[in-house]
Amino acid sequence: MEFRHPSESRTILTDLVLPGETNPLNNLFGGELLARMDRAAGIAAGRHSRRIVVTASVNHVAFNRAIPLGSVVTVEAKVSRAFTTSMEVIIDVWVEDRQSGEKTKANEAIYTFVAVNESGNPVVVPSIKPETELEKKRYDAALRRKQLSLVLAGKMKPGDATELKALFI
Amino acid sequence: MEFRHPSESRTILTDLVLPGETNPLNNLFGGELLARMDRAAGIAAGRHSRRIVVTASVNHVAFNRAIPLGSVVTVEAKVSRAFTTSMEVIIDVWVEDRQSGEKTKANEAIYTFVAVNESGNPVVVPSIKPETELEKKRYDAALRRKQLSLVLAGKMKPGDATELKALFI
Amino acid sequence: MEFRHPSESRTILTDLVLPGETNPLNNLFGGELLARMDRAAGIAAGRHSRRIVVTASVNHVAFNRAIPLGSVVTVEAKVSRAFTTSMEVIIDVWVEDRQSGEKTKANEAIYTFVAVNESGNPVVVPSIKPETELEKKRYDAALRRKQLSLVLAGKMKPGDATELKALFI
Amino acid sequence: MEFRHPSESRTILTDLVLPGETNPLNNLFGGELLARMDRAAGIAAGRHSRRIVVTASVNHVAFNRAIPLGSVVTVEAKVSRAFTTSMEVIIDVWVEDRQSGEKTKANEAIYTFVAVNESGNPVVVPSIKPETELEKKRYDAALRRKQLSLVLAGKMKPGDATELKALFI
Amino acid sequence: MEFRHPSESRTILTDLVLPGETNPLNNLFGGELLARMDRAAGIAAGRHSRRIVVTASVNHVAFNRAIPLGSVVTVEAKVSRAFTTSMEVIIDVWVEDRQSGEKTKANEAIYTFVAVNESGNPVVVPSIKPETELEKKRYDAALRRKQLSLVLAGKMKPGDATELKALFI
Amino acid sequence: MEFRHPSESRTILTDLVLPGETNPLNNLFGGELLARMDRAAGIAAGRHSRRIVVTASVNHVAFNRAIPLGSVVTVEAKVSRAFTTSMEVIIDVWVEDRQSGEKTKANEAIYTFVAVNESGNPVVVPSIKPETELEKKRYDAALRRKQLSLVLAGKMKPGDATELKALFI
Repeated sequence: MEFRHPSESRTILTDLVLPGETNPLNNLFGGELLARMDRAAGIAAGRHSRRIVVTASVNHVAFNRAIPLGSVVTVEAKVSRAFTTSMEVIIDVWVEDRQSGEKTKANEAIYTFVAVNESGNPVVVPSIKPETELEKKRYDAALRRKQLSLVLAGKMKPGDATELKALFI
Repeated sequence: MEFRHPSESRTILTDLVLPGETNPLNNLFGGELLARMDRAAGIAAGRHSRRIVVTASVNHVAFNRAIPLGSVVTVEAKVSRAFTTSMEVIIDVWVEDRQSGEKTKANEAIYTFVAVNESGNPVVVPSIKPETELEKKRYDAALRRKQLSLVLAGKMKPGDATELKALFI
Repeated sequence: MEFRHPSESRTILTDLVLPGETNPLNNLFGGELLARMDRAAGIAAGRHSRRIVVTASVNHVAFNRAIPLGSVVTVEAKVSRAFTTSMEVIIDVWVEDRQSGEKTKANEAIYTFVAVNESGNPVVVPSIKPETELEKKRYDAALRRKQLSLVLAGKMKPGDATELKALFI
Repeated sequence: MEFRHPSESRTILTDLVLPGETNPLNNLFGGELLARMDRAAGIAAGRHSRRIVVTASVNHVAFNRAIPLGSVVTVEAKVSRAFTTSMEVIIDVWVEDRQSGEKTKANEAIYTFVAVNESGNPVVVPSIKPETELEKKRYDAALRRKQLSLVLAGKMKPGDATELKALFI
Repeated sequence: MEFRHPSESRTILTDLVLPGETNPLNNLFGGELLARMDRAAGIAAGRHSRRIVVTASVNHVAFNRAIPLGSVVTVEAKVSRAFTTSMEVIIDVWVEDRQSGEKTKANEAIYTFVAVNESGNPVVVPSIKPETELEKKRYDAALRRKQLSLVLAGKMKPGDATELKALFI
Repeated sequence: MEFRHPSESRTILTDLVLPGETNPLNNLFGGELLARMDRAAGIAAGRHSRRIVVTASVNHVAFNRAIPLGSVVTVEAKVSRAFTTSMEVIIDVWVEDRQSGEKTKANEAIYTFVAVNESGNPVVVPSIKPETELEKKRYDAALRRKQLSLVLAGKMKPGDATELKALFI
């Protein structure tokens, strides 16, 4: 069975926050960050599947820290788990202090992509084999998120969501 | 106690899909749609709170249907529930067929915004009083989503998430 | 004979003024507003005709009030009258005060669009049946503007512009 | 009395039509051309007045000819007449055939700008002294357009618009 | 033998520096100026060759003077010399003082373009016949730059670069 | 004496080629690539100097290979040598084949940046200590390029450019 490691899809997009990308508080505009994460995550999903990929859903994005104009922002995306034709991608965002060079975590996001052929129909993708502790933790949590997503969409009965249910009982 | 109706924050952003906003399959690029939804939802949160608002999180976005180049896209945002200083905003996205004029639901998204003062500190916002059946349904679900978000962030014990727990037992 | 009401083409584009869209006085750049109005008016003309439409002329735009950075701007477009293959669209622009929620009229513009088929040739569009007082007033004035436009382009003799001439004698 | 020639404000903006600036028919998007003309005309008004200028109105724009993707477009703006604190600017747009090098007139537009000081209050500008035949013709027509604009805005009685009235009697 | 004068390819792109095009010091962002110069130079190369042209290299750009927000910037490009299928284009950039109207040289750049047919294969272009003193000086220097470029790319032995070598001995 | 390794300034910007960034041949527009390289190189110079940096010159960019729409492009920048207040940054650009995952070198560029304080005055930067063979080769060549740049600008006599002269004799 074919698989790949999360590190094989690792994608880094380091860029500036320019004046045309800020909100009225002079911080990076939320929508611009969502777009950058979508591009980086899509490239990661493409590297894992070697297919055309389309955004299927954005499962969670937390904006914990405002990112001021002029900042250096690093968006890093890796496929955390694959499910038949879909891939969960986790994106970590860091901001870098110019004087100290120190990097602070600013955001974390989870997107899902589907691999498609030229006609736009879903195609099977390799599975994921996590290596580091963090990759394993994220791999396990991905299944609970998948179940949660199916439950919320009414496509799975809560009682069948075994991993998820275990959280509450 | 001060409250507002969801309809008071209703925000409509109808716009075209231009060539510079498409992906290689000639459909609206996911990141561009995320940015449009963020702007419309931010305006809705601003209309509800009459404050500066910042994106706190994107809780869920489902991309159910590709939106081709040249489409007329309507993004409609309304505050579904308010929690002290934060507001959940639900965004519905429709695509319009040019010849029949018929509108099809393409996406649905849930964003959370926080109201802040000029220094960026959170401030209290009015509560929401839902009117229609759909608004009531979304208002109730917002509490479960809030609990889920707190549980996933490790800020609430699963056992304390009463409304959420009821789903699984 | 086929007709539609102005309300059937009503198009609303509510959006923010972001830093990348301002002039050196920190107000919305004129060219950006012209582009937003063109998109909204084009969608309105498309909703009326259910055809591809192209901008034929901008007949009048008055910039009465500067729109500062961070404003919420609502562009509202409706077809005011149709002439065989062309449509006059009137666009009203409002700015919203964040604290009071009050809307102030900032601009008004008149654009003309032509409906075309896939080869780019003009095609006949439904006529307009105005309903409100304002719609009727704008419908009548549209004929005078049409005549004026033909006179200025040297395509109609001033003496034949009956409605227009009546203004001056 | 201070005056300047139209040629002293002549402004040329030659640029390409890139894919991100086209409409679904693969021609230059109307809104983008309106924005380019606004920038060129604003520079011309600034060269005439040596002041900050703001767009006051767009009086007329005729889109006579579609401008395809990849075209070289030349926007040329010159102040045609000045009125106390305002300036009428006429913009001519040419498209260039790559193989023959021949230029064809594609559009013509008339914008009005007001000169302001740092506080945004109108300031007096030099008058215009036309030199060529075309400049003289446009200078004369500018007064009729000014009257027409005042009449349409309800700020001048039709009977007082002497130059304009002469057209119809 | 077919030739053209540098003045026949002269291309002028005058435009504003808008807020979305600045760096954190509020000056025109280097990357934006590089892009404007590339467009103007590409048009000049197209006017000389009457062919599709693609950027082959940027040989030298000196950023001597920061260009502040709100400036009027004139980019002027002319083909300085042609070599079989390639053209060297020199770009001069001026900034204009609003109050005095005085123009100051801000940058100078040298780009090389190749003319191609529809399949992307290089095609022969007319040669250049310089007229003014500056054009002649630039024409001569272009050959030394061409040799330098070949030497640096390892495609010419330094000893064969006759004109270039003469500089050092 | 303070120094840093080239690897400490290594900056990676991986991004897609979207439709709004292409030329009429459907390849990445030269100007857009120049802008991306400028941003990545500026971040690298900022990481080396921990200062505000401004683009001083673009010394050489070779566009060897067209980059088609939809490609994944990796721009990698590293400081190759520092001279008192300036830094030479070398940028390598790779394009990735979606199906094989193979990366091909598409471009190489050399930019120079100057570190400045808040008033825009140049400040001293750490020197560079190269580690790998490629870094050492680029470090040595940087001095020849520096001399060449001074000679071409008329700021150094060819006879004094010892390292450069050695190439030709």
